[in-house]
Amino acid sequence: MPETKPDDKAPWITYRPELKVLDCTVRDGGLVNSHQFSDEFVRAVYDACVKAGIDYMEIGYKNSKKTFPAGKFGPWRHCDEADLKRVVGDHDAERTGLKLAAMADAGKSDWQTDIVPAADSPLSMIRVAFYAHQLSEAVAMIRHAAELGYETTANLMSVSTLADDEIDTVLAAVAETPASTMVIVDSFGHLYREQVDKLYRTYTQALEGTGKEIGIHAHNNMQLAFANTIEAIILGCNRVDATMFGFGRGAGNCHTELLLGFLRNPKFDLRPIIDVIQHHIVPLRRDIEWGPLLPYNLTGALNQHPRAAIEWREGEQRDDFLAFYDKVVAEI
Amino acid sequence: MPETKPDDKAPWITYRPELKVLDCTVRDGGLVNSHQFSDEFVRAVYDACVKAGIDYMEIGYKNSKKTFPAGKFGPWRHCDEADLKRVVGDHDAERTGLKLAAMADAGKSDWQTDIVPAADSPLSMIRVAFYAHQLSEAVAMIRHAAELGYETTANLMSVSTLADDEIDTVLAAVAETPASTMVIVDSFGHLYREQVDKLYRTYTQALEGTGKEIGIHAHNNMQLAFANTIEAIILGCNRVDATMFGFGRGAGNCHTELLLGFLRNPKFDLRPIIDVIQHHIVPLRRDIEWGPLLPYNLTGALNQHPRAAIEWREGEQRDDFLAFYDKVVAEI
Repeated sequence: MPETKPDDKAPWITYRPELKVLDCTVRDGGLVNSHQFSDEFVRAVYDACVKAGIDYMEIGYKNSKKTFPAGKFGPWRHCDEADLKRVVGDHDAERTGLKLAAMADAGKSDWQTDIVPAADSPLSMIRVAFYAHQLSEAVAMIRHAAELGYETTANLMSVSTLADDEIDTVLAAVAETPASTMVIVDSFGHLYREQVDKLYRTYTQALEGTGKEIGIHAHNNMQLAFANTIEAIILGCNRVDATMFGFGRGAGNCHTELLLGFLRNPKFDLRPIIDVIQHHIVPLRRDIEWGPLLPYNLTGALNQHPRAAIEWREGEQRDDFLAFYDKVVAEI
Repeated sequence: MPETKPDDKAPWITYRPELKVLDCTVRDGGLVNSHQFSDEFVRAVYDACVKAGIDYMEIGYKNSKKTFPAGKFGPWRHCDEADLKRVVGDHDAERTGLKLAAMADAGKSDWQTDIVPAADSPLSMIRVAFYAHQLSEAVAMIRHAAELGYETTANLMSVSTLADDEIDTVLAAVAETPASTMVIVDSFGHLYREQVDKLYRTYTQALEGTGKEIGIHAHNNMQLAFANTIEAIILGCNRVDATMFGFGRGAGNCHTELLLGFLRNPKFDLRPIIDVIQHHIVPLRRDIEWGPLLPYNLTGALNQHPRAAIEWREGEQRDDFLAFYDKVVAEI
């Protein structure tokens, strides 16, 4: 088997079978359009994931209907069981090779009431997203979802803004949870290669002996989402996130099609991804903007939330890059 | 001085003063429009390079007028002294901090007759571009230009298609020349991080003791041009190429504005680059296409010349990514 070995002379043409790809097109992309996707769209992404050999599809959020009212937000903000079943039917993770995941945010989810036992849901995994100061709730959420039978992950967001001590404290707490995976989340698309390396080392050292995997969720503000994902893979990350055509809020994400072009596990098939991009994602791009545009380059380099850049692109001065540059530099 | 030291804990916020940036916007971008730029455009790029603290500006090719007839090709395909002087006047490399460079291709240049002594030209550097089989001519070109008083570089193109022995043979020959720099040129935008590492090691070992610098010229077919340039910098490359807004043939290049956002030498100023992008490069983008579009992702991943993708984007099926995928997969 051409599996990657430590002394590989050309590791870029071998593979690790344990590396799993999670496609979060619907979950992350939905932040752009309040998760107002047609069932047809979500089913097309689902079918493409199955055909392409993707390991996990994150189909939406398990977020609160109080904070995100139904109607104003589409069904993939809540992932009600009825909506899931309408679109994926009797989903069989075993037969399809695809597991379904949903994300629950600390502070934005009624997780005590909204998550049904895994045995009653097509979902296999709950990913818990949280900021450092929400650590205690996140740990409770992970434990709760694990008790309900889900695989769980811990997604510490905006890690580029945290002090080393804060990261250490989070990792020590996550180490004690049943989470299968701790994800490096570069919310601002700010990390350069050496910072990915440092975080990977920190995460692995803190979680040594726990059996937990390290994941990566990169944003493309500086055209580094794919590169940082490759870097994490080379270091040993076995859980990697991507979205088709990079669809996602602001600068978007690591492109699933680029990632599958890099991975050498023959189980992956790029063609269904190209197909769904052409017939379902490109049409969205006509009305919705995303990608590593210049304003995102700047907020990424400055380690800022892309909010200001997103708002700029919605305003009348949207193409005045220089005025945006002057604004962000003045406001630092 | 916050210069990078071997034991730096956060090398991404320090810098190496010896790292030099070469902007090849006009030279590489001109491949898209046969170098038919207005004088105003070239002067705007020149002014931006001076103001931004760029070290070298590659202003065009020194190519043969037999192969590339004047009129059909603009002045920056030939870089006649009269054209240079009309645009950059009495260019003073010392005062401006900017050196001017031109590229001469083996097989496409009348270098024996077309290059005047450096003392009579605003150009300071001749970069010799060649394929491996043109090694002998390239060595003669480097020697000739060096004798005329130019700094010279050796740019071995399409390195991702060469056997290790071929690369070794080129490096052994270049080691004996007066070239200041040997450039890793990823013409097909195919290199992944580990391949950049391998090439950097090979180049440095072969050139050890010669005092030569290693350079990097990356293409953006897989959204890796900036990332591979960062990688090369981390390894020790001190000569890096970029173009404003990534302007260049096909998928384009490492973006100058992303690169300056990463470099910490306070001599660099990003603002003039944003300015010229907004007022001179973005307007070009309305008529000319470049960037890491899906067809380039595919040729890059397959280690193919982007020619097929460029032609596809000029044809009626330009948006039929799936048909392009099927074509390139069938033709492998």
